[in-house]
Amino acid sequence: MMQGWQTTPPQDNRTVGGWALARSQQGFLADANGVLFPREWLKRQELPVVAEHGLGCFDGEPVWLLELSQPAELEGCHWQGLRQFMMQVDHPTFRMLSLAEQVGTWFSQHRFCGRCGTRNQQVAGERCLRCPECGLDSYARISPSMIVLVTRGDEILLARSPRFVQGMYSTLAGFVEPGESAEECVAREVREEVGVEVRNLQYLGSQSWPFPHSLMLGFHAEYAGGEIVPQPDEIEDAGWFHIEQLPPLPMGRSIARYLIDLYVARRLGLPEPVLPG
Amino acid sequence: MMQGWQTTPPQDNRTVGGWALARSQQGFLADANGVLFPREWLKRQELPVVAEHGLGCFDGEPVWLLELSQPAELEGCHWQGLRQFMMQVDHPTFRMLSLAEQVGTWFSQHRFCGRCGTRNQQVAGERCLRCPECGLDSYARISPSMIVLVTRGDEILLARSPRFVQGMYSTLAGFVEPGESAEECVAREVREEVGVEVRNLQYLGSQSWPFPHSLMLGFHAEYAGGEIVPQPDEIEDAGWFHIEQLPPLPMGRSIARYLIDLYVARRLGLPEPVLPG
Repeated sequence: MMQGWQTTPPQDNRTVGGWALARSQQGFLADANGVLFPREWLKRQELPVVAEHGLGCFDGEPVWLLELSQPAELEGCHWQGLRQFMMQVDHPTFRMLSLAEQVGTWFSQHRFCGRCGTRNQQVAGERCLRCPECGLDSYARISPSMIVLVTRGDEILLARSPRFVQGMYSTLAGFVEPGESAEECVAREVREEVGVEVRNLQYLGSQSWPFPHSLMLGFHAEYAGGEIVPQPDEIEDAGWFHIEQLPPLPMGRSIARYLIDLYVARRLGLPEPVLPG
Repeated sequence: MMQGWQTTPPQDNRTVGGWALARSQQGFLADANGVLFPREWLKRQELPVVAEHGLGCFDGEPVWLLELSQPAELEGCHWQGLRQFMMQVDHPTFRMLSLAEQVGTWFSQHRFCGRCGTRNQQVAGERCLRCPECGLDSYARISPSMIVLVTRGDEILLARSPRFVQGMYSTLAGFVEPGESAEECVAREVREEVGVEVRNLQYLGSQSWPFPHSLMLGFHAEYAGGEIVPQPDEIEDAGWFHIEQLPPLPMGRSIARYLIDLYVARRLGLPEPVLPG
């Protein structure tokens, strides 16, 4: 039996048993035991279920997602968003919830065919919605993004977006454009966001970031030239920070924080952190 | 002036001048001078244009895409698909055509809102289609995929899909699933496709693959255990090949070929190849 979380192709909804998650606009249903409910019990609760999706297996037991049209009340249960769960749950549970969130978002945003406007149909055994009129298939979207720590000796380049919590600075990040490699994206985004050039790119790992559907590709890059000029509207402030005098940083589970902690550890000869999966 | 190709946010369609590409279901329009036509001249040819998209700059000159509802005939011109251009054109031109192809595909597949079925509207200054009814934004899709060369000393693991040209073998590849990292995807896909376990993953570079919209993330992995069991329907045959007795391989411009050539070069102490961008 596989321990923890394992994503699988969607199981046949007609089978009985297993676990189920319930999801609405308010997040996931939880009680004192967590987010997994006996599936047959949950289906007897007269919830406004609009779709059921097989997701994978937790400790070897199949798990379904029940997607609700609205957040029903159930005694002893409450609703909670994915960001809050991220702070609280173990990694296998977070992976399961990330997949569930993205499958739910995909389903709600692909009810109609983008090419001809016809209502889509679920394809059995695949995580796919198909147009019965023109045949266009729609899969869950994942947006590859790069995130990069630019360094200059004992200084690192950090910036803040107007959307960040007050005082916090982070690494630079941006979505990969059609037609470019991840490495070309790093050079372009750094140039656009702060006006500097980089060299010696090094890939350091990746992380799924389900807000709403990114795959973050983490890089280190050395400063190669240019003066910092923040991009209007996107970058509120940017600057070089000494590794021993850093501002408030993103939380420990993010790849942004990992990139910073790793560089600081290497400069100071400390034990290296491990990238949270 | 920037030489070669540079992707930019969409320019204002009301400006005049610059270059234009024309695209239909049959590919791109080309004449003896290539694929770029003077934009104002092309717009006077009474083509069935359904949309115009600013793409970027070629040698500093702005380039638009004219998306046609059908492939019109123009004297001295012919239509040709992107795969054929890939064999013939330089890298900046291929990057430009890759972006154009993906922007064209995105536009044709997001004419209607996937959430509510309303006809979308183009957002000025952004590569974005927006629903006037529910506000859902649709961007061009990029699908992150991993591609991996699994090795065991002087042997490499190659497989063939039933869709490959006769006799050709290649590395393993597959789409990243929502909720997993690129590294988790490598382990899962290798297990699913050939039933073996891997270790010591090393990222070796990325490549945009516009058929139709992949970002390929290239890895090397060492064999860790298991017997090869090809996945039914997906893998027609798979096996270990000695690096001095390799079967027909994918063409030189692909990242698959780069991963193989790089490993062979390192084992044999030959000069290392460069990843085509």
